[in-house]
Amino acid sequence: MTLLGRLTLHRSDERSLQAQLAGQLKQLIQSGDLGAGESLPSTREMANDLGISRNTVVATYDMLVGEGYLEAQLRSGFQVCRAAQAFRSLPVTRNVASERLRLPATPALPVPFRPTQPDVDLLSLQIWNRHRTRVLKRGAALLHYQSRFPVGLDELRQNVAGYLRDSRGVRAPWHEVAITSGSQQALFLLAHLLLGPGQNVYVEDPGYPGARKAFELVGATVIPTPVDEEGIRLPETRPLKASMIYVTPSHQFPLGSCMSLSRRLSLLQAARKSEAWIIEDDYDAEFRYTSSPQPSLQSLDEHRRVIYIGSFSKTLFPGLRLGYVVLPPQLVDQFARLKSVVDDYGPLIDQATLASFLESGAFYAHLRRCRRHYAERQQFFLDQVHRHGLPLEFPMTGRGMNLAGILTDGSSDLPRSQRLRSAGLDIPPLSRYAIASTKPGLLFGLAAFDKKAILRGVGDMARVFKSK
Amino acid sequence: MTLLGRLTLHRSDERSLQAQLAGQLKQLIQSGDLGAGESLPSTREMANDLGISRNTVVATYDMLVGEGYLEAQLRSGFQVCRAAQAFRSLPVTRNVASERLRLPATPALPVPFRPTQPDVDLLSLQIWNRHRTRVLKRGAALLHYQSRFPVGLDELRQNVAGYLRDSRGVRAPWHEVAITSGSQQALFLLAHLLLGPGQNVYVEDPGYPGARKAFELVGATVIPTPVDEEGIRLPETRPLKASMIYVTPSHQFPLGSCMSLSRRLSLLQAARKSEAWIIEDDYDAEFRYTSSPQPSLQSLDEHRRVIYIGSFSKTLFPGLRLGYVVLPPQLVDQFARLKSVVDDYGPLIDQATLASFLESGAFYAHLRRCRRHYAERQQFFLDQVHRHGLPLEFPMTGRGMNLAGILTDGSSDLPRSQRLRSAGLDIPPLSRYAIASTKPGLLFGLAAFDKKAILRGVGDMARVFKSK
Repeated sequence: MTLLGRLTLHRSDERSLQAQLAGQLKQLIQSGDLGAGESLPSTREMANDLGISRNTVVATYDMLVGEGYLEAQLRSGFQVCRAAQAFRSLPVTRNVASERLRLPATPALPVPFRPTQPDVDLLSLQIWNRHRTRVLKRGAALLHYQSRFPVGLDELRQNVAGYLRDSRGVRAPWHEVAITSGSQQALFLLAHLLLGPGQNVYVEDPGYPGARKAFELVGATVIPTPVDEEGIRLPETRPLKASMIYVTPSHQFPLGSCMSLSRRLSLLQAARKSEAWIIEDDYDAEFRYTSSPQPSLQSLDEHRRVIYIGSFSKTLFPGLRLGYVVLPPQLVDQFARLKSVVDDYGPLIDQATLASFLESGAFYAHLRRCRRHYAERQQFFLDQVHRHGLPLEFPMTGRGMNLAGILTDGSSDLPRSQRLRSAGLDIPPLSRYAIASTKPGLLFGLAAFDKKAILRGVGDMARVFKSK
Repeated sequence: MTLLGRLTLHRSDERSLQAQLAGQLKQLIQSGDLGAGESLPSTREMANDLGISRNTVVATYDMLVGEGYLEAQLRSGFQVCRAAQAFRSLPVTRNVASERLRLPATPALPVPFRPTQPDVDLLSLQIWNRHRTRVLKRGAALLHYQSRFPVGLDELRQNVAGYLRDSRGVRAPWHEVAITSGSQQALFLLAHLLLGPGQNVYVEDPGYPGARKAFELVGATVIPTPVDEEGIRLPETRPLKASMIYVTPSHQFPLGSCMSLSRRLSLLQAARKSEAWIIEDDYDAEFRYTSSPQPSLQSLDEHRRVIYIGSFSKTLFPGLRLGYVVLPPQLVDQFARLKSVVDDYGPLIDQATLASFLESGAFYAHLRRCRRHYAERQQFFLDQVHRHGLPLEFPMTGRGMNLAGILTDGSSDLPRSQRLRSAGLDIPPLSRYAIASTKPGLLFGLAAFDKKAILRGVGDMARVFKSK
């Protein structure tokens, strides 16, 4: 009874009644006002006296039992845990005031024209969730520990193998396909497996920083290599001075060229002669509009020097974090063993959901919808830029989620990008992706932004360009 | 019309009508019977002629457009893609017959008495999914790319910090908590950050193989260190010959001792004097029944030499793959940078769902339910083993999901475990976890198996023991 007198709940408080009650009980236990082993009023008594629902009291007691403050006794209700008391009395002098210094952030939507963002609103979450519900109905196995699948559920590996065979001519049996936590993990694992200090990697310059960082993390040396409208331009010397070549042949990041067939064949020949690995990051291959595709390097390679990687981040949604890698046979077991030490295995419900989504054909319908919208948006953006007479040239159009625009007024791209940022636009300079110098330019992501957003975004840009 | 004559669908076929239609159209395109640019019948015509629903035809055409076989023309329907044809005609001589050699596996339920498996049926998926639906309703940000959260959503880090503070006295501001892909990833990242060739780590022997593998992967040397009923027994020499000590103090894996307070204090002192890191893997801390808890090492450590790790694999479900690590302040930024190169960031929907689940108190109610069942199951198992008079002794009871049983009949544990496996039981020998020798014994996981399964499992065991 005395306890009940010390508790006061306020319905106007922003915290729930349960949170208030739990907080006050904890304080009383920590201060010793509620002693070890002391019995609490029954849930019915507590509820009646405080004028709240009994469920709230039950939930609060449950929570405090879970946290170790209370103990449930079979017939005598709840009492303060003896152990919790002893535990609390230990000296804790550490200062946790710094907690207030760091403000938590929440996930935000991308602003125009942030590159490489898909339009997640084009995905039917309803259909996705229907597949999730379906796979959960199969039983509890997906919830259990499944260490035999370090590189992904076999059903997903099979469906990804089928998708890559049909869409990109990738030839590999399903057990050479490994599922990773985004393509970034694939890059890291390959770097860990195949590179080390003293080894060199040719990378496109400008190019994708995520790959560069993975290679440098394991101590390898990155050799920046120029790109032109046909793709990477390797040095003429043979053998090559590197044991790996990293390329984005479908849609070079960030400039946007598609590697020509002759460049592809000579790249394969150079890799074979030098016994170098090629990492084919087939990023953005799904999105081509007016231009015709080129066969993947993997499909042209008779000697299995090509390691093919990709991701569902751009075709479905980035928050899913599912990528894949198609491995040469001799690397499959090593890759799986490494993955099992690095993070054991990946989340299973999402993998099974994706397998079902691919199997049903829903993925292909989704891709088609994206392609249609992205093609329209790219054209609409180009029309708007033209209409405003902005000093930008777009040499590589007709494919991809991004467009690289070259500045034609002789201005530098970094200050330009910074001024656009002050106007609320997220348009990185091409120089951000370069090791050596590149033409000054800006990288525009168009996929995630509808026509209204493009109209407004280009308008905002035009104002910034004029105000210089 | 000629095309339609070549298509035959069978409702009795185990494949869907869509899969049959797509497969036959692809074959016709690949063989050249359907030429590049050739028009297909309208969806209505195709549906009428084949006697199937028009939706099925639309879905099939969509899928083939997605895969690059067909093109959709604005007014003239669908035609065979010109590019796809050229693409198909490239020589592909590689042999993919090996595909048939590897049979895909499906996730399976654990069999008695596989260790360290929680009972996932105790989790209300309905409540879990309700939280998931709630966080998805907040908007699309969770689906987007969110590279600013390499070590987890801030809301989850806050709730995990609160949970660890309340349940284990762990003192750290939320931004020192990092979310990982299971505790295995935490071990790997810490090994990568803090260890290298030429460095030593004390590990418990017998102990957890996953930790050992992570340390060895980065080239460190593992020093097996004996354990007794009070926990790890470090050598007396100071300074220690290692820069890291890995321990499982709440419930030593696999033997089951809980590290005594005096052992904890001397361990902390030794680490401080030697400037060594302690990794406190607080695996299984949530499950204590009759025994009283000890304060976590992290809560006793005034010098921040302790790195605290744990996982929701055992408290919720292993397929979730969410672990956490509480870092000393000076390691926070390095850890986040490393994680962003290793796999960028983790899946976001699950993280937000877990944050909401923790916030609501549902997690605490779930833990309490698990504790009650697991305590009962442990006692029931001990009673059954006693009833059958099996030659096993269980020195450490009253906590945890597992029980180590010492063989008292002088038999070796490996052949014993193998014979149990032939009888359909999954009971690993203690020697599997040992580097030097250990007492012969078996490791039993009891949490995932209800009384009926325990009754049958011990019965099966008894038959194997008698049949020797």
